[in-house]
Amino acid sequence: MARTCLAVILAAGDATRMNSAISKVLHPVGNLPIISHVTGAAARAGVSHAALVVGRDAEAVTAAAGRAEIAVTAVVQAERLGTGHAVRAARDVISRGFDDVIVLYGDAPLINPESLKAAQAARQAGADVVVLGFRAADPTGYGRMIIENGELVAIREHRDASEAERRIDFCNGGIITMDGAQALSLIDAIGNANAKGEYYLTDVVEIARARGGKVVALEAPEEDLMGCNTRAELSEIEAVWQRRRRTALMLSGVSMIDPSTVYLSHDTEIAPDVTIEPGVWFGEGVRVGRNAVIHGFSHIEGATIGEGAQVGPFARLRPGADLGEDSKVGNFCEVKKAEIGPGAKVNHLTYVGDARIGAGANIGAGTITCNYDGVNKHLTEIGAGAFIGSNSSLVAPVRIGDMAYVASGSVVTVDVPADAVAFGRARQENREGMAKVLREKARALKAALTAARKPVE
Amino acid sequence: MARTCLAVILAAGDATRMNSAISKVLHPVGNLPIISHVTGAAARAGVSHAALVVGRDAEAVTAAAGRAEIAVTAVVQAERLGTGHAVRAARDVISRGFDDVIVLYGDAPLINPESLKAAQAARQAGADVVVLGFRAADPTGYGRMIIENGELVAIREHRDASEAERRIDFCNGGIITMDGAQALSLIDAIGNANAKGEYYLTDVVEIARARGGKVVALEAPEEDLMGCNTRAELSEIEAVWQRRRRTALMLSGVSMIDPSTVYLSHDTEIAPDVTIEPGVWFGEGVRVGRNAVIHGFSHIEGATIGEGAQVGPFARLRPGADLGEDSKVGNFCEVKKAEIGPGAKVNHLTYVGDARIGAGANIGAGTITCNYDGVNKHLTEIGAGAFIGSNSSLVAPVRIGDMAYVASGSVVTVDVPADAVAFGRARQENREGMAKVLREKARALKAALTAARKPVE
Amino acid sequence: MARTCLAVILAAGDATRMNSAISKVLHPVGNLPIISHVTGAAARAGVSHAALVVGRDAEAVTAAAGRAEIAVTAVVQAERLGTGHAVRAARDVISRGFDDVIVLYGDAPLINPESLKAAQAARQAGADVVVLGFRAADPTGYGRMIIENGELVAIREHRDASEAERRIDFCNGGIITMDGAQALSLIDAIGNANAKGEYYLTDVVEIARARGGKVVALEAPEEDLMGCNTRAELSEIEAVWQRRRRTALMLSGVSMIDPSTVYLSHDTEIAPDVTIEPGVWFGEGVRVGRNAVIHGFSHIEGATIGEGAQVGPFARLRPGADLGEDSKVGNFCEVKKAEIGPGAKVNHLTYVGDARIGAGANIGAGTITCNYDGVNKHLTEIGAGAFIGSNSSLVAPVRIGDMAYVASGSVVTVDVPADAVAFGRARQENREGMAKVLREKARALKAALTAARKPVE
Repeated sequence: MARTCLAVILAAGDATRMNSAISKVLHPVGNLPIISHVTGAAARAGVSHAALVVGRDAEAVTAAAGRAEIAVTAVVQAERLGTGHAVRAARDVISRGFDDVIVLYGDAPLINPESLKAAQAARQAGADVVVLGFRAADPTGYGRMIIENGELVAIREHRDASEAERRIDFCNGGIITMDGAQALSLIDAIGNANAKGEYYLTDVVEIARARGGKVVALEAPEEDLMGCNTRAELSEIEAVWQRRRRTALMLSGVSMIDPSTVYLSHDTEIAPDVTIEPGVWFGEGVRVGRNAVIHGFSHIEGATIGEGAQVGPFARLRPGADLGEDSKVGNFCEVKKAEIGPGAKVNHLTYVGDARIGAGANIGAGTITCNYDGVNKHLTEIGAGAFIGSNSSLVAPVRIGDMAYVASGSVVTVDVPADAVAFGRARQENREGMAKVLREKARALKAALTAARKPVE
Repeated sequence: MARTCLAVILAAGDATRMNSAISKVLHPVGNLPIISHVTGAAARAGVSHAALVVGRDAEAVTAAAGRAEIAVTAVVQAERLGTGHAVRAARDVISRGFDDVIVLYGDAPLINPESLKAAQAARQAGADVVVLGFRAADPTGYGRMIIENGELVAIREHRDASEAERRIDFCNGGIITMDGAQALSLIDAIGNANAKGEYYLTDVVEIARARGGKVVALEAPEEDLMGCNTRAELSEIEAVWQRRRRTALMLSGVSMIDPSTVYLSHDTEIAPDVTIEPGVWFGEGVRVGRNAVIHGFSHIEGATIGEGAQVGPFARLRPGADLGEDSKVGNFCEVKKAEIGPGAKVNHLTYVGDARIGAGANIGAGTITCNYDGVNKHLTEIGAGAFIGSNSSLVAPVRIGDMAYVASGSVVTVDVPADAVAFGRARQENREGMAKVLREKARALKAALTAARKPVE
Repeated sequence: MARTCLAVILAAGDATRMNSAISKVLHPVGNLPIISHVTGAAARAGVSHAALVVGRDAEAVTAAAGRAEIAVTAVVQAERLGTGHAVRAARDVISRGFDDVIVLYGDAPLINPESLKAAQAARQAGADVVVLGFRAADPTGYGRMIIENGELVAIREHRDASEAERRIDFCNGGIITMDGAQALSLIDAIGNANAKGEYYLTDVVEIARARGGKVVALEAPEEDLMGCNTRAELSEIEAVWQRRRRTALMLSGVSMIDPSTVYLSHDTEIAPDVTIEPGVWFGEGVRVGRNAVIHGFSHIEGATIGEGAQVGPFARLRPGADLGEDSKVGNFCEVKKAEIGPGAKVNHLTYVGDARIGAGANIGAGTITCNYDGVNKHLTEIGAGAFIGSNSSLVAPVRIGDMAYVASGSVVTVDVPADAVAFGRARQENREGMAKVLREKARALKAALTAARKPVE
């Protein structure tokens, strides 16, 4: 039978340094709340259950944690008396019995599932307690991991460390995995006889060893353990997350001219041989097919982009935009909840909302689907091969037939049959010499206004 | 009585390596001329008077220097014979009598007022001369600060330094504070018996010591002392300045998904819990209220953005844009000199200039306020709750009443009463089968053009 | 007589790690294929002939190589048996007789022509073989250059190197220049008695020395020798290339507020005293005149921008856009194949395609040149000083005379004489109280739809 593992996730911090109206674990990284990354990593590491220690915004935090494939039980930490105390809040869940209990931090979304698997493997190989550490670029301030004969014998706080110990760059990363059977007893043994009067989870290292247990340390990259205490740190975590995702996509065959300006979401899917110019935002729910080109300064969310499609520059694709193969959505165009048929073109200064556009249709510059009457949204249907003249307004609900033609500048309020031409514009009239007259009037007005503004002398 | 301090600011450099038609101290950092940063830092450090040593573009440089809360006297350096010579150009101002005289560089805008306060404090604590230094990442080429018994005994130029001295990483930053009573006598004692025949301000260190004076060194971050000799260096200074402002805003509670692409101006004000997506430009004069969201690819200057407002993506806000609470200005929209009422929506492909839009009004896609007659600008007023249909043209001066409705594609030239509907568009007419005819004509034209272009055989 | 030099360029790699449908040497850097950079560098170093060793996509690779001023002979490497084997594929070309034969890599576009000139100079000074090396930040894995008495005596592979040799940071860069007279004999002497059974070009070092030849090493920056095996490496090469070009432009007098977001092409020309805001894309074929300002979020290709012109923010200039002095193309404007006269303004939400706009003309917001009839493109001509009212549609072919005026919202289908005013819009009609009626209808519809969707209980 498979081993069972419980993750106790500490997510009750106040995070006053975030200066935020919401819990820090709800802030997004890659458009997904931080806490969802943590539960997601636990799920991918085979953890089946999470005890979520919550404080502020308990309901929202619990909901966000539940976005991963993992059962979540929220427990409230009423007082904030240290990490050891926080884990005790999960006492009831821990006592249900798990092979392993792993303590994670709700504000550290970059943890790699492989590290959590390695910790479970170390447990299975005989360790009673496993501590995840990292090689610090600058270890000042961190607890040092004292290793003897392959075992972790102590975590020495910086202030208590000797000169020699301070030269150790292997530092405590905080993530601790315990034998599930001993977990309650270990955390209950943590005392608070220290300067701050807090209960420190790291004390389980010495407690376990005092009982004859085996404690080992594993190593993870420092980056994986980054926690979020300020919005500056949040932006650093986002940067690491984005860099990893961009690199993974590039290695799979996606070209990014400047990856540092391509912003991905947790669920962005991009096929090989897609090219992305600098300055592209992918919100949630985007899929891009092979050979598509995403030109710069494009803002895309909730959209499906077919193979060989061209998007941007300056395209805005909103949820429900569904671009067919080899279709084009060009500059200063917005598409929302609309199908753009294969090979259809929406190239210039156009708004397409609540619409279906047939294959090969050509939508002229400045076309607007007038989909909203102030209360309801209505559908515009444009047939295959239709040609919509520039600056037209299509007042929905309305249907333009296959191969039909709308004259430039028309307002279309009734359906246009296939192969018909719709005119909805006034006849032009030129008035000779009148521009001169208008200019003179405008200048006279200006002079009058200027005179009126002049102070009385 | 408060101590008095004079800043002598050297701003006469030719800066040929800038390849610029204007003085380098007029180039902007954070949308403020470099020289204004320097006088601003002096002002914040309690300096009340600046002697500005100018050469090129004297008038513009003096005006820019005067943007800070400090009295400025411009003095002209006719010849360029070294820093010591430049300070002498301020002789008349120095002789007015100040407790301290501090020499600053007009091309180094990152100087921290705290460093200047520290220099004044060191003077008050008994130093006759105070030199600001920095720990150089690579000291090669810099003058080394030779410290003995806590005093600065010499500044050794790189070429004159011994092996041991070259290992010193504490380098001369150039900013020197002198006892005001001795300042003239010290600078007059500077000679030019050196390879270049120039007068070096740093000589005051040895001159003061030779007279039994006390000289001390203070330390500032290397970054603070960056000077600007090329546009590449200008861009590096801008990068440091931006990074600092971004970090300060993030620590105060502003979220930036990628701070490296958010560009701030010297006077940008952003409240906590504002979220800023990648790619936002804040020109001068922008204030953003709490909980607003600024989507990516937005270009904003001279605008006020109310609490909870949504801006962009692809929004252009120009001077005088005043967005009410919870209002929205969306993609491909430009707003200039216009009030957008609370909750009003200007969401798509719209130009709003010289206008007042009432609370809750909805401006349809592609709406244009036609505010310009070629000579004058006119006002458009739109009442609360009004609904402007898409692709409408509102020819100012014009007033749309509360809760009125403008039909899509209308040209509105006269006022619309409250609750009325304005139509200003032609009736639609469909011509059956005509699209086919037009297509055939167009193809025939193409064939004719192609034939005409064919070379005669 | 001038010396002759042949470049043998290895461009036959499979590059499976690119996950690409095309050869890696065809991927662009600065909008120019990688292979064109390599032949360009060779040409600038005085190399007159290139033997291009091709595999995949031979035709396209040869064409791209030919974009530089150099004669190219493509030779096919049928099997892939190492660099020595690849050079042998060029046997016929080498045997035509050259003073020097230099082996280059088709996937390393950052090579500096100065390094290739230095190699030829070393040959002329008596070296039989010249190897280009670099100081590696981390030499692990590279072949170490063993120098004795100023000569290169061996290239020691990492796995064969002693402890002392591994501390050498001078590494083999792969580019080897040989005496043309000995080249064939040297490469024929390369054996494949090694673990992989491949022919290594580096063997020529020991072969030449065994024959009493002189072999020397030259040094180039590590960056210059970067090769491209993945799209992540491609993006790193692009970053180096862009950084160099940006710096060169800044040093020549171009201001870039954030150079890291200005994207240049291989042929971008920008005059001094031009200012570029963050977020600008220069595709191929762009020239910018002195004092122009390019505002942020602009996408420019194939365009000429006159002195003092203002572009953007949010401008799209496509091939054939030709902006006169002091003209303006502003936000959400697209210009394609069109002359914008001196001082003319195209400022807001406009599409100008296939057009000529006279000096000082003013094109109102939302104007569209309707240049396409579904088959042909037609010309729009706008006279000097003309004023096009907002939201107008100009249906090409059409001509607007000098100083003429088009009323806002007009559809113009016939020519407008100079000084005339064209009206092409319907008269406005207000229907009192009708907005209220429409709102009630819309709400009733919504209620009906909601009821219809309600599940039967």
